[in-house]
Amino acid sequence: MSDLPNRISIKEEGPREGFQIESAAIPTERKVALIDALSGTGLRKIQIVSFVNPRRVPGMADADDVVRTFRKAEGVDYYALWLNLQGFERALVHRARLAVRGTLQTCASEAFLRRNQNRNLAQNEAYQRHVADAYRNAGVPVDRGSVMAAFGCNFEGDIAPATVLRMVDLIFAVAAENAFQIDEIALADTMGWATPRSIKRVVGAVRDRYPDARINLHLHDTRGMGIANAYAGLEMGVDSFDASVAGLGGCPFAAHPGASGNVCTEDLVFMCEEMGIETGVDLGALIEAAHLARDIVGHSLPGHLMQGGKLSALRQARKAVAGG
Amino acid sequence: MSDLPNRISIKEEGPREGFQIESAAIPTERKVALIDALSGTGLRKIQIVSFVNPRRVPGMADADDVVRTFRKAEGVDYYALWLNLQGFERALVHRARLAVRGTLQTCASEAFLRRNQNRNLAQNEAYQRHVADAYRNAGVPVDRGSVMAAFGCNFEGDIAPATVLRMVDLIFAVAAENAFQIDEIALADTMGWATPRSIKRVVGAVRDRYPDARINLHLHDTRGMGIANAYAGLEMGVDSFDASVAGLGGCPFAAHPGASGNVCTEDLVFMCEEMGIETGVDLGALIEAAHLARDIVGHSLPGHLMQGGKLSALRQARKAVAGG
Repeated sequence: MSDLPNRISIKEEGPREGFQIESAAIPTERKVALIDALSGTGLRKIQIVSFVNPRRVPGMADADDVVRTFRKAEGVDYYALWLNLQGFERALVHRARLAVRGTLQTCASEAFLRRNQNRNLAQNEAYQRHVADAYRNAGVPVDRGSVMAAFGCNFEGDIAPATVLRMVDLIFAVAAENAFQIDEIALADTMGWATPRSIKRVVGAVRDRYPDARINLHLHDTRGMGIANAYAGLEMGVDSFDASVAGLGGCPFAAHPGASGNVCTEDLVFMCEEMGIETGVDLGALIEAAHLARDIVGHSLPGHLMQGGKLSALRQARKAVAGG
Repeated sequence: MSDLPNRISIKEEGPREGFQIESAAIPTERKVALIDALSGTGLRKIQIVSFVNPRRVPGMADADDVVRTFRKAEGVDYYALWLNLQGFERALVHRARLAVRGTLQTCASEAFLRRNQNRNLAQNEAYQRHVADAYRNAGVPVDRGSVMAAFGCNFEGDIAPATVLRMVDLIFAVAAENAFQIDEIALADTMGWATPRSIKRVVGAVRDRYPDARINLHLHDTRGMGIANAYAGLEMGVDSFDASVAGLGGCPFAAHPGASGNVCTEDLVFMCEEMGIETGVDLGALIEAAHLARDIVGHSLPGHLMQGGKLSALRQARKAVAGG
């Protein structure tokens, strides 16, 4: 019936996605408290900051302090995001505490690329080659390629799978020139255009051309399709997902109308574990971290499990009644 | 790859689900305004009230007035819910304005049945036969059976598909005794226990035994699985869903922590239409109705499309730019 994986890997992006978007100044130690809580949940990959222009993203002005002060847990890799070489240089300073790995970044929508990074497709291709040189010179492993706006774009409309494939081709071409071993291709639904059907279509197209590439999905929940899209990915055998605790990064309600958060980590973990797919994550600890995230930002967040609760507690109560 | 239907039928339950749960007294004319707005969206089935004890459900105390005053639209069937023969008698009064049809109601969890309706399984079986007599005597068609808690229960835990099948067997047995033609079996995830896997398992079990029965899914979004579960249903060929505009009936946030709304109608319509499955619903008109619903209840509601917006507007804007 389908090709569900036995186990998935989740990269938690809540601290970066969330604190980047919040308008209120959140004290550094509160951000660190959330990262430390997440470190105890079983998550093995946590993206904690972005090194971006603090004038454009004031919430990330204390990124260096966050990286300096969180408690590094055994077996957990901590990541930073950057969009250009200035950001990369800032990340390199923290090489002892961060997993500094390079990603070749492409975008299936030229219109979005222009708006977001002020580059056209040709300029971005040249820039990725330039970045590849910098990574190689710094001795930084490059094992990942990403395609933004892989399922549609507010400024360009629908995206053809062939366009996504051209971006994946570019990633593998630049990787080959540099003898990089690409382990994962991330397909991002940056603006919440995907449905289960387009997930299957695009993942299928990439898989057909690159059967050995591991595919990662980065799914924004703008239109409520996040979990359904993740399920469609699982059915295609996708076993790597980005997610945000409590749905941090989006608050479709009071604080940030229309903001598009990443799919919620604990909702994703719940779905997988209930379907027999291992995540390695302790759902109870993750729900506690989600409540902490809500306390820190001071407003409701989109996650459901933090309200609905896990089923194992109800199953236990039932057993206790039956036993007594 | 899957067995997606070409077209689905949606029963809108927002007015009933929503106004039943709201703590604030909502004026009758505001309820009617929402029903009238929904009548213009293309939805063909709208459940507008429940005839229940006004001391237990104060929000439905004006049910008779609502039924008397909404504007009946051509081609739309309006439904009421009732849980016992007193409620049925109240509905019968409005036979000219309501589609009064009987449902044989079962529950896969005896614990929930006891709590919710103060009957055990044997008592409910007897009661359904009693109700069937009343329907037959009143000349009311009985074309539907329902199974509450078909995917799990807060008080009984996991529910085996075999238990659901016993309830479906009972429905068909009572129907056969009364020469009722059952057109639809509704499987309700009353407490939000379902995942795509259990949807497929239970729907598959019912389909195997009753290949000709149309299956309807009533999916609560307590744990954020509603849309993914609907997608799993679509993949099994299910083409009948209940849904609530704006996710009315649940507000996981400020007003009603933990409340479990039905899956959101406009989010469901969006997913289907984007995947090429016809719903007959005008998404723009439905989103306007969702905004009206939010204004009426006076707090945020869980729907996503009402925040994220439809894609057709973005596609149009893109075409206009390209054309100009």
